[in-house]
Amino acid sequence: MKKSLKSHAILLITCPDKKGIVAGISQFLYRMQGNIVHADQHTDMETGIFFMRIEWELDGFKIRKQDISEKMQPLFHRFKIRHSLHFTDEVPRIAVFVSKEDHCLNDLISRKRNGEFKGDIRVIISNHMDLRETADLFGIPFYCFPVDETNRHVQEKKEQDILRKQRVGLIVLAKYMRIFSDRFVKKYENRIINIHHSFLPAFIGKKPYHQAYSRGVKIIGATSHYVTPQLDEGPIIEQDVVRISHRDSVSDIMRKGRDLEKVALARAVRLHTENKILVYQNKTIIFD
Amino acid sequence: MKKSLKSHAILLITCPDKKGIVAGISQFLYRMQGNIVHADQHTDMETGIFFMRIEWELDGFKIRKQDISEKMQPLFHRFKIRHSLHFTDEVPRIAVFVSKEDHCLNDLISRKRNGEFKGDIRVIISNHMDLRETADLFGIPFYCFPVDETNRHVQEKKEQDILRKQRVGLIVLAKYMRIFSDRFVKKYENRIINIHHSFLPAFIGKKPYHQAYSRGVKIIGATSHYVTPQLDEGPIIEQDVVRISHRDSVSDIMRKGRDLEKVALARAVRLHTENKILVYQNKTIIFD
Amino acid sequence: MKKSLKSHAILLITCPDKKGIVAGISQFLYRMQGNIVHADQHTDMETGIFFMRIEWELDGFKIRKQDISEKMQPLFHRFKIRHSLHFTDEVPRIAVFVSKEDHCLNDLISRKRNGEFKGDIRVIISNHMDLRETADLFGIPFYCFPVDETNRHVQEKKEQDILRKQRVGLIVLAKYMRIFSDRFVKKYENRIINIHHSFLPAFIGKKPYHQAYSRGVKIIGATSHYVTPQLDEGPIIEQDVVRISHRDSVSDIMRKGRDLEKVALARAVRLHTENKILVYQNKTIIFD
Amino acid sequence: MKKSLKSHAILLITCPDKKGIVAGISQFLYRMQGNIVHADQHTDMETGIFFMRIEWELDGFKIRKQDISEKMQPLFHRFKIRHSLHFTDEVPRIAVFVSKEDHCLNDLISRKRNGEFKGDIRVIISNHMDLRETADLFGIPFYCFPVDETNRHVQEKKEQDILRKQRVGLIVLAKYMRIFSDRFVKKYENRIINIHHSFLPAFIGKKPYHQAYSRGVKIIGATSHYVTPQLDEGPIIEQDVVRISHRDSVSDIMRKGRDLEKVALARAVRLHTENKILVYQNKTIIFD
Repeated sequence: MKKSLKSHAILLITCPDKKGIVAGISQFLYRMQGNIVHADQHTDMETGIFFMRIEWELDGFKIRKQDISEKMQPLFHRFKIRHSLHFTDEVPRIAVFVSKEDHCLNDLISRKRNGEFKGDIRVIISNHMDLRETADLFGIPFYCFPVDETNRHVQEKKEQDILRKQRVGLIVLAKYMRIFSDRFVKKYENRIINIHHSFLPAFIGKKPYHQAYSRGVKIIGATSHYVTPQLDEGPIIEQDVVRISHRDSVSDIMRKGRDLEKVALARAVRLHTENKILVYQNKTIIFD
Repeated sequence: MKKSLKSHAILLITCPDKKGIVAGISQFLYRMQGNIVHADQHTDMETGIFFMRIEWELDGFKIRKQDISEKMQPLFHRFKIRHSLHFTDEVPRIAVFVSKEDHCLNDLISRKRNGEFKGDIRVIISNHMDLRETADLFGIPFYCFPVDETNRHVQEKKEQDILRKQRVGLIVLAKYMRIFSDRFVKKYENRIINIHHSFLPAFIGKKPYHQAYSRGVKIIGATSHYVTPQLDEGPIIEQDVVRISHRDSVSDIMRKGRDLEKVALARAVRLHTENKILVYQNKTIIFD
Repeated sequence: MKKSLKSHAILLITCPDKKGIVAGISQFLYRMQGNIVHADQHTDMETGIFFMRIEWELDGFKIRKQDISEKMQPLFHRFKIRHSLHFTDEVPRIAVFVSKEDHCLNDLISRKRNGEFKGDIRVIISNHMDLRETADLFGIPFYCFPVDETNRHVQEKKEQDILRKQRVGLIVLAKYMRIFSDRFVKKYENRIINIHHSFLPAFIGKKPYHQAYSRGVKIIGATSHYVTPQLDEGPIIEQDVVRISHRDSVSDIMRKGRDLEKVALARAVRLHTENKILVYQNKTIIFD
Repeated sequence: MKKSLKSHAILLITCPDKKGIVAGISQFLYRMQGNIVHADQHTDMETGIFFMRIEWELDGFKIRKQDISEKMQPLFHRFKIRHSLHFTDEVPRIAVFVSKEDHCLNDLISRKRNGEFKGDIRVIISNHMDLRETADLFGIPFYCFPVDETNRHVQEKKEQDILRKQRVGLIVLAKYMRIFSDRFVKKYENRIINIHHSFLPAFIGKKPYHQAYSRGVKIIGATSHYVTPQLDEGPIIEQDVVRISHRDSVSDIMRKGRDLEKVALARAVRLHTENKILVYQNKTIIFD
């Protein structure tokens, strides 16, 4: 069963496309008694790069978890493979950053409780006090670090201390309306997911719903993406859209948009925590 | 019945919002024995502007077509109404401009033959010879005016001669890949419909599908809009979108996009020819 | 502004289509100094029935709220109008019925707190104890009435006592998995909104997601509708859909479906509480 | 490049899931110097069945086309594999069946000319004369076999003669409004694609748009599927949907529906001709 309680290993690989990769990997797993439960691959024809996600049962597998990478080293070397290895029994530790709006946070907590994604929300961090009550309601530790032009580095340092202490592996910006320093962003490369309330690359920057209203578009969107030092330019994970009309005021657009934001962000978090995303040259390969 | 063969009058009005407009108009039509078959209105709360589309049967109406505007003049004056008046028995005369791609042209002709929109395609004009055969197949006059940096005004003049001679009321750019002069555009204000192969305002300008591929978006779109002197910035009439994934090459994206282009353009042409579009400050009110 | 704090009156009317209705109504409101802020109408061509929703400011209106219906009686009589009259300062009192799943309940509460719809959730009623904790969390009174084949009428009577005591005007079935008696349903005609987890009329009855999986559909849906004595056959208010593929297990389908359920139910509740729904012959006219 | 002119082999396999299948197949192709350009697989967890589509370049492959199946026989035997083998340089020969409506036919022809799918439309067969002119326009042989209650088998026999003579491999029912005999259907199992103008399984049978109008649904759909002896119950290949409202008359619904029909049918034809569909127990696995 897909929702097996047994632990699986997940291997993500990226390498130059070459004959024999699949044969090599699958032959290795077969010899080691690995029962493959999912495998997905993709070759980017333009760059000649090969991507693969392969998931197999650890039960009966002849190699211990901690030795897998080492034993596969010859294969990785032979095919110039960059890889990452994950295990389904290791639950991602998540920090959620918020500002004043709570719909994405509420939605994530509700989904978490319904088992829609794996992951442990360890801490909520905000630049405002508004959502302390929500955090308390669900018993999640809440920290407030107000940020202005002068104190960003000091506050980021405090945030990093918490992230480190909590061993956070994924940062989710659930309507956190501040920009991190480049240093912070690089430290958590491909591990910070943001939700931007527009159909990127349309309406980059501030007040995208107001921009959409002014431009008179007939469809609005929301975009979840990994954060990079370039604002709103990181690899897109998921987008969703909804129709609007001349009858929709800015507040109608914002209401419709919130539904998109919740869904686009939640899908990205699920995909990330299930190790279904590979990033290459500012684009994502989604093995869903 | 909606598809009545009896002729209807359609009045489109724009004016400052004020008490008594609807009462005034509807009272007038009632006294003149006009049977209203459709009425739709909208008030833009931000600008305080009132918009209305009202359609009534001419059969039994006490005023002759040619006298309606004059008889309503006192009402128009009292409420500072800007109006346009149309009749369903007057078929719009259309010129379709194309370049090399024929999918939108084929689609429009097929829809026309199926009665999906009123309108008479009088002429096909192109800057290339590629689609002459298609025009011949359907017996539509075809003119070719190759345009380069040096001859635009000369060629536009020839095009205008044809448009004038054919009494063309609507110009449809069905993948016409050239830009008109400002003078030309202003002459046909709100009467030139273009299809842009992106979800505007994303990917303005050239090769939007290539731009979308490079940016790694997960949804692509197409936009039909009225042409203004500012490239790709005119009032948006209709947009449509479709999901893509990392598996889609540029040519897959182009294939999926063609379906959007056909539909978004055809809807705009139908709405325009049914006089269901009002333009105000670079935005459209669509009474559909 | 649309979100005005000033109170408005909303009149919904249904009558045989006839010349002069709009003139009559709008003339009346104009004479009484009613400033119309929204008006929407529809004529069903097949049945010849006219529908209208008209909203005007009470501020400055020459008739007191409690006298409006009486003063309009001659108009209603003349045009054989069936009407209902509502005021935006009267907040609907809502009872939410649930069983074991909490995603729709959580979503409604979260939207309520964000002001997405007017309405006061007075009470949560369930046939199971599972969601008592959620109700407690948000301080909403919770009642549990387990229902089986033998005690339905007894339990419904207790439920009705609560509904009466709380003066509930709208019942929302947020994944309540029991069927009411005909008598109960008729008592709350067009005031019970249900969410059915399929694209009705496909997959009526039990386990629609399992049915969808077995049939191998490529798109699934959810439907919000008013409850009638015929199971899953009441007037449809809103539907939404999402793509699935052969890769989706039943639990994936259920996860995707929950997002549809939340959105389709929330939209129906908002439309109902804003008095934007008219029902005629098992169909809805939605003036949104 | 994906659109390579070089010929590829495509192998579709179905077998009980078992360790070593991927290793076996990929090892074999690697040893024979086959360069894999696409591979996709799926395991149905419920039935324990494994599906795979694998495509490799014939250029440089050590086995001649005609010998591939035989050389792979030991592998097929070992894993109890049911397979089919295809080559991209073999163009499918298509018969299109129509009745009176031409929008799907026009659309298919237009797409064919634009290279959207491989395949050679050898013949158009109809039970009416209406579309003879369209067939003539594009120079495609047209045959008319009027069918009534008494002559179905006689006419089907004539149709089969033509299909045989033209060596047709795929039958596309582009709004062909007659039902074939079971014998005919079984002869072309999984090789007859129909477009049904509803969101199956809603509105099976006649006049689905009228049914949708009567039921008051808010979304309509179209479904392309393989034809089986059970009417409208065959494996679904593709579905598409569009929103409607109370404003849409039956003819509006039909107009909107035609766009869905064209797209859902065209996608199915493309997927089939690219050998991307596997059928198992009345469901499709789509490797797109």
